[in-house]
Amino acid sequence: MENQGIDIQVDRLRRTEYDDYSCWLQYTSISNREWVEHHQSLLSQIIVLNGSMVVKSAKQELFEAIKSMAGITPTLSNELTSQYGIVLATYKDHPSLTDHLSSEEFQNLNEEGYIITSFHSGSQRQLLIVGKTDIGVLYATFHLLRLIKMEENLDDLYIVESPKNQIRMINEWDNMDGSIERGYAGDSIYYENNRFTGDVDRLKDYARLLSSVGINGVSINNVNVHEIETNLITSRFLPDVARVAEIFRAYGIKTFLSANYASSIQLGGLDTADPLDKNVQECWIEKVKEIYSYIPDFGGFVVKADSEHRPGPFTYNRNHADGANMLARALKPFGGIVFWRCFVYNCLQDWRDRSTDRAKAAYDHFKPLDGEFLDNVVLQIKNGPMDFQVREPVSPLFGSMPNTNQVLEFQVSQEYTGQQKHLCYLVPQWKGVLDFDTYAVGEGATVKRIVNGELYNYQNSGITAVSNIGNDRNWTGHSLAQANFYGYGRLIWNPDLTAEEITEEWIRLTFGNDSEVVASVSSMLLKSWEIYENYTAPLGVGWMVNTDHHYGPNVDGYEYSVWGTYHFADCHGIGVNRTLKDGTGYTGQYFKENKDQYESVETCPDELLLFFHYVPYTHRLKSGVTVIQHIYNTHFEGVEQADKLVEDWKQLEGKIDYTRFGGILNRLQEQAKHSREWRDQINTYFYRKSGINDDLNRKIY
Amino acid sequence: MENQGIDIQVDRLRRTEYDDYSCWLQYTSISNREWVEHHQSLLSQIIVLNGSMVVKSAKQELFEAIKSMAGITPTLSNELTSQYGIVLATYKDHPSLTDHLSSEEFQNLNEEGYIITSFHSGSQRQLLIVGKTDIGVLYATFHLLRLIKMEENLDDLYIVESPKNQIRMINEWDNMDGSIERGYAGDSIYYENNRFTGDVDRLKDYARLLSSVGINGVSINNVNVHEIETNLITSRFLPDVARVAEIFRAYGIKTFLSANYASSIQLGGLDTADPLDKNVQECWIEKVKEIYSYIPDFGGFVVKADSEHRPGPFTYNRNHADGANMLARALKPFGGIVFWRCFVYNCLQDWRDRSTDRAKAAYDHFKPLDGEFLDNVVLQIKNGPMDFQVREPVSPLFGSMPNTNQVLEFQVSQEYTGQQKHLCYLVPQWKGVLDFDTYAVGEGATVKRIVNGELYNYQNSGITAVSNIGNDRNWTGHSLAQANFYGYGRLIWNPDLTAEEITEEWIRLTFGNDSEVVASVSSMLLKSWEIYENYTAPLGVGWMVNTDHHYGPNVDGYEYSVWGTYHFADCHGIGVNRTLKDGTGYTGQYFKENKDQYESVETCPDELLLFFHYVPYTHRLKSGVTVIQHIYNTHFEGVEQADKLVEDWKQLEGKIDYTRFGGILNRLQEQAKHSREWRDQINTYFYRKSGINDDLNRKIY
Repeated sequence: MENQGIDIQVDRLRRTEYDDYSCWLQYTSISNREWVEHHQSLLSQIIVLNGSMVVKSAKQELFEAIKSMAGITPTLSNELTSQYGIVLATYKDHPSLTDHLSSEEFQNLNEEGYIITSFHSGSQRQLLIVGKTDIGVLYATFHLLRLIKMEENLDDLYIVESPKNQIRMINEWDNMDGSIERGYAGDSIYYENNRFTGDVDRLKDYARLLSSVGINGVSINNVNVHEIETNLITSRFLPDVARVAEIFRAYGIKTFLSANYASSIQLGGLDTADPLDKNVQECWIEKVKEIYSYIPDFGGFVVKADSEHRPGPFTYNRNHADGANMLARALKPFGGIVFWRCFVYNCLQDWRDRSTDRAKAAYDHFKPLDGEFLDNVVLQIKNGPMDFQVREPVSPLFGSMPNTNQVLEFQVSQEYTGQQKHLCYLVPQWKGVLDFDTYAVGEGATVKRIVNGELYNYQNSGITAVSNIGNDRNWTGHSLAQANFYGYGRLIWNPDLTAEEITEEWIRLTFGNDSEVVASVSSMLLKSWEIYENYTAPLGVGWMVNTDHHYGPNVDGYEYSVWGTYHFADCHGIGVNRTLKDGTGYTGQYFKENKDQYESVETCPDELLLFFHYVPYTHRLKSGVTVIQHIYNTHFEGVEQADKLVEDWKQLEGKIDYTRFGGILNRLQEQAKHSREWRDQINTYFYRKSGINDDLNRKIY
Repeated sequence: MENQGIDIQVDRLRRTEYDDYSCWLQYTSISNREWVEHHQSLLSQIIVLNGSMVVKSAKQELFEAIKSMAGITPTLSNELTSQYGIVLATYKDHPSLTDHLSSEEFQNLNEEGYIITSFHSGSQRQLLIVGKTDIGVLYATFHLLRLIKMEENLDDLYIVESPKNQIRMINEWDNMDGSIERGYAGDSIYYENNRFTGDVDRLKDYARLLSSVGINGVSINNVNVHEIETNLITSRFLPDVARVAEIFRAYGIKTFLSANYASSIQLGGLDTADPLDKNVQECWIEKVKEIYSYIPDFGGFVVKADSEHRPGPFTYNRNHADGANMLARALKPFGGIVFWRCFVYNCLQDWRDRSTDRAKAAYDHFKPLDGEFLDNVVLQIKNGPMDFQVREPVSPLFGSMPNTNQVLEFQVSQEYTGQQKHLCYLVPQWKGVLDFDTYAVGEGATVKRIVNGELYNYQNSGITAVSNIGNDRNWTGHSLAQANFYGYGRLIWNPDLTAEEITEEWIRLTFGNDSEVVASVSSMLLKSWEIYENYTAPLGVGWMVNTDHHYGPNVDGYEYSVWGTYHFADCHGIGVNRTLKDGTGYTGQYFKENKDQYESVETCPDELLLFFHYVPYTHRLKSGVTVIQHIYNTHFEGVEQADKLVEDWKQLEGKIDYTRFGGILNRLQEQAKHSREWRDQINTYFYRKSGINDDLNRKIY
């Protein structure tokens, strides 16, 4: 590659403008000079009618971006008098805006919504960037910058946008020692050596990335709150938390903390964490007051209680509502909320016990408590009933609790989907979850309509996710994993966006507008989930990974464990019988339409077949092939597809800057190599177990 | 137990004399007053004719023991004039000894041998404890103390003893951070926090234990020599090593160190560890000089080179002889020796590759080098070709290198045999190895005759083992695991001792002479290896353990790994084909008689069948049952036997002091519980894989 001569050298120079660190905020110069000339006058002035910190962030972003992309240094003004320019304002900033924008249009926006509209009058050529409130201005600015980067015509814009979800959040799983639980992109950007890093620049850039895709809340420490992190809510660390919150505040992002449920013991000096104990309640009331004295707009707590050995109300014979409400009462006066995680199950299960079913646990624990939670409690529910597998059905808790706030929890971090060494673009998976019809109130009761609060008029609801970033220069380890971060934000802003739209946007912003790059990378991303699924656990059965770290194949890795995660493969067949008829009865947690569909082998979708049914290897799928042949076929195909990803990427040499081209190529090659380990272990395992030959006589060991 | 009233209270008081810490050196008072009275005069005086440090240790041990056991404070004398008493002397200490002991008898002793003889002449009643050299006096003293503790009559003793093996060694796998690799009895007694503990009392007691069973060499750090331990051979730590050596020296024990092969780089500032490089050689010569300036009787080095990612001569295209000889040349002037470990194999094997066989590796690497090693190099060979499994064939290297010194390496630490949570008394296993006939020079070429140097006139040879002790108060975690430490020492002193003899000795010394205790504990110990084998990996196939820590069942744990440790179970059968005919050819490494026996399914012993052959589950063993039924039977039986161990032990309540009774009971109960996990995982695995029912319809999951 180094020896391809002068053309490449020139190209390298041009490409060095791109920096992996900037992700999709690549303010590289626009090579289409025609576009720049056409918009010259518009870009030459920024008129700012609002002085808030958030609008200041918008102005700064816009100013730097225009300078960098268009080579124009805009003049800055606080007056609407100019003929040309981009106007940043909230609706109430200037009465004359009402001439152009009807008050009705703004009534229909929610608090974070915005309108972008071109205003032509005589020789006046303005672009109005108007938020319902200041954060709308910032979101609109990032929207405009997307359009600019994609070289869209800005002459006749009329864009009305409101986020569909009120809560759009990220959960960091960062520990104060600098490690990140399930983190695959270096260490924490927040902490090192049990202190805050104090890296303001990096945090500010992170806030820019978050805000640019509409994230409005971040919990900044691991839901497993260990000894030292328990002290984040004390005077020892609250000044540091406040400094982080200040950085995030300027980008419209609220700061949350994961709290140790037993803090009343560890910090409060009490001998109990009984939620009905007056002293415990008082302890939390005082603690919350103290937090808000440092951070007046503190978001609230994320709590993992009675889950995987974390403390919780069960110790005191209280239920989750008791526990969550105690915290919620303390937060209520300040507007804070409690995210109470539903990831509660028996993690000391006996593998011999076929009656206990981990998939049933969250529903069994929480459904009976519907209506008992205060309105500033939000139940946080993982997308599936298990744990972020490559394929799971949707959690039956969605739709089943009309009187309890819910947020959906995704995992952007690729714990079970290749750990950012493998390409696995999750937007298509997430869309499937959001579009899933629960039939909670008849047809159309999709998950997205539940978590956006529409169906049950939730007070607080939305979507959250486990972060995939770390202090690697490119934030996400695999540069293409940036697409999951971007896609997550964009999708939860508006779950009606198609995966294709989001993907194209991300590629154009990240790599530029070259149509070959767009087509090729788009195809790679959109197929990648299926590819990953092909060479890993088949037909919805899940797991088959190495224990603890969860990377790489181990078919029986969890088969005889305490974790409730089994596939029950024997020499005749494989799968978990979760039917009402003669299985664990999990299907009964769904509303009728889904229950009926999953209950029957005939109607259960193939991709979830082994999640719901034990079937013989000779069972014929809807595709016509047997289960065993499907396993062989998909695993051989998956490796071929992984190889193809490498080949496809190589075709883009010269069109992508060297750093990212090489970094991504390395990861794709590692994936292709590692996919063979998956293929061979799984095929060999099932060949040895079933004794059934591959119809195509391919090499199985 | 607490409520059984006054009898137990009295018993408890009596029993508190026993202390787990003292292991088999329990100098509790002899309850048989008749015996004490009979020997009163003999025990009333100790006559010491030699002033060496080692004889001083003997005198001190004898004095304290008599005081404690017999309630007599012996007078001490340096003169032979007294009528009564025990005389401690070396042969050359006093010419009058020749009156009683022929010089011929002493000629036949080796340097560490001794004679214990009663001397009666008129009213003179003396017991002569005479060593060929001073260490013989100490060994004889411990011998005498065994007799006293067992209340044997001392009137007419005539005992002639020489150790059968010259090298009788222990390898500690202690790291300076205080951890012990494969240690199951607490942390290191040598190190903590990357420094020496300086716990002189503990080290002295350890030296007493070692010497009491005849161990004469200890390497004090892990064979995996990490960063900090590499510095043990520098002035930073040599003063500390010298202090340890001083403690050991008084008990006739030489101190060795595990050395980092690449020290010339890490310590010497060179950029190579090429053994043929003059600077590297010079570096070691200087280093060894420095070591001996601190420890004039330093034993030498133990080296793990080119093994499991440790550095070695392969890096420089040199062979093991080149590497070992370089170190040996440096040690030669001082009488030091090099233990060069043969645990060399491909630890990055592809599980798909059926041609590579880890079992073949040591032989393939070392056999061709026979005769190339200097005479102060000793090849250190694990008992089996794999890694201390519950059952393995004997390494074919034994007997195959007539011109190269060999020591046999056992593992007293129970890495794969229950980690001192399970009872697994290994003396019967070790005896099997020592008595194995290699047929190297025709019938009778047993391993014990090879490693004792008899067969090939080795200059340096013997037996070494990985230690099972740590800083737990009882040294070995499981108090019954003390028997492995004791048994190892006694067995390598004299491999012709029967397991029954050693076992009875240990029990009587450790728990007293109650015949029910002796019978019951003896039976428990002697059956324990078989019991452990019954519920773990069947028929010699090995492994089936969890990775890394090696505790507990995981049938496929190593099946798709890089470690070369596979069982190849499929739905038809199981086992590794290591035949010459159509397998890996490993059988060809044995001499004809063994090769022929192992090569054929008909003659291969059942207990090693799956090590050598892949057979169908329906293959009938010599016992008449099929392989699958054997698996079921032994696993059900193993659990019943583990339960029986608990019951047997409970029968001894009141006969064993409370601390040890309870501690051992806890471990036996844990074993019984854990044996069920083994049984169920293995039976379920094979039932699911084979689809063959248990003939007896017992519960399989």
